[in-house]
Amino acid sequence: MVTDHRKQPRRRGEELASAIHRATLDELAESGYAKLTMERVAERARASKASLYRRWPTRVALVMDAVYHALPDLADVPDTGSLRGDLLTLLRGTADILAGPMGEALRGLLAEALRDEAAARAFKENSQGAGRKMMAEIARRAVERGEIPPEAALPIRLDTGQALLRQHFLFQGPPIPDALLVDIVDEVMVPLLTR
Amino acid sequence: MVTDHRKQPRRRGEELASAIHRATLDELAESGYAKLTMERVAERARASKASLYRRWPTRVALVMDAVYHALPDLADVPDTGSLRGDLLTLLRGTADILAGPMGEALRGLLAEALRDEAAARAFKENSQGAGRKMMAEIARRAVERGEIPPEAALPIRLDTGQALLRQHFLFQGPPIPDALLVDIVDEVMVPLLTR
Repeated sequence: MVTDHRKQPRRRGEELASAIHRATLDELAESGYAKLTMERVAERARASKASLYRRWPTRVALVMDAVYHALPDLADVPDTGSLRGDLLTLLRGTADILAGPMGEALRGLLAEALRDEAAARAFKENSQGAGRKMMAEIARRAVERGEIPPEAALPIRLDTGQALLRQHFLFQGPPIPDALLVDIVDEVMVPLLTR
Repeated sequence: MVTDHRKQPRRRGEELASAIHRATLDELAESGYAKLTMERVAERARASKASLYRRWPTRVALVMDAVYHALPDLADVPDTGSLRGDLLTLLRGTADILAGPMGEALRGLLAEALRDEAAARAFKENSQGAGRKMMAEIARRAVERGEIPPEAALPIRLDTGQALLRQHFLFQGPPIPDALLVDIVDEVMVPLLTR
């Protein structure tokens, strides 16, 4: 069914962006990344293709923006009162997200970026480093509590958890076993950050 | 130019496999993974397509086997006399390899595995964990020299170097800056394994 979006009341700014984000996530969940097109998202959101392209020049930019809007952000960083608890909660939350449509989106985005230079550039330009920012926030709180020395919280160390989790996700596929997440925290991240 | 391979003297076993491996690597270097087909490899190796399919049922299996044969193996694990030296030499060697046609092959293989379940299965089935085995050998020698306690050399810790290096390679692309490799060794792997 083709909807004539010109007959809809006009939506602007945030309202329109929200509708397009929702439509993007619904398309991802229903049909997957490979079949997602600007056209199908526009149709589902009852918006014009021009209004999509005005804001998101590429499919990569649109999908990444929709995914970032749906992911937990800094305000949602777990605060369990201990470094171990915070790390485990964050990694478990990430593993849950990767097991669903967001994981499918990440696989699709990366597959496109690996094959196509323009997509790779868009992928890098639209990355927000959300995982890294959340790790830094967890480390900041642990320093504040006196649990870890400030000089231990190096960015490369904070990256190890995500790198190990992503490696499993990309090369073995989801789901990520909980025992792996516990090992990442207890055998790698806590020893690296506390000693 | 079409070569009639039936007029060539018959090659068997290792000799034929070597010629096909070489042809696969040459195709990768010349045209990249996306354009590589069983047909083009067969033609270049002056072999029949049937002889390829008999040994390698899929393109993924063929490319992975060719790549593994060309990579350094356990016998080539650097032996510099120190944990730091061995780790740095191994990671630098890996980074060099990823910057060339082998890196292009890995990106192509992974892109295919991310989009296609059969390719993902073939990718897992044909993985040899060469990087992991080399890391284990480096750790074994360091334990033998008394440089690290045996209980420190956990598989998940030995994986961190490769995971961080691959994360950069896949999400940022080659080349991998040497400063990153030095950080991986000095700020992550050596502290994790020695303390």
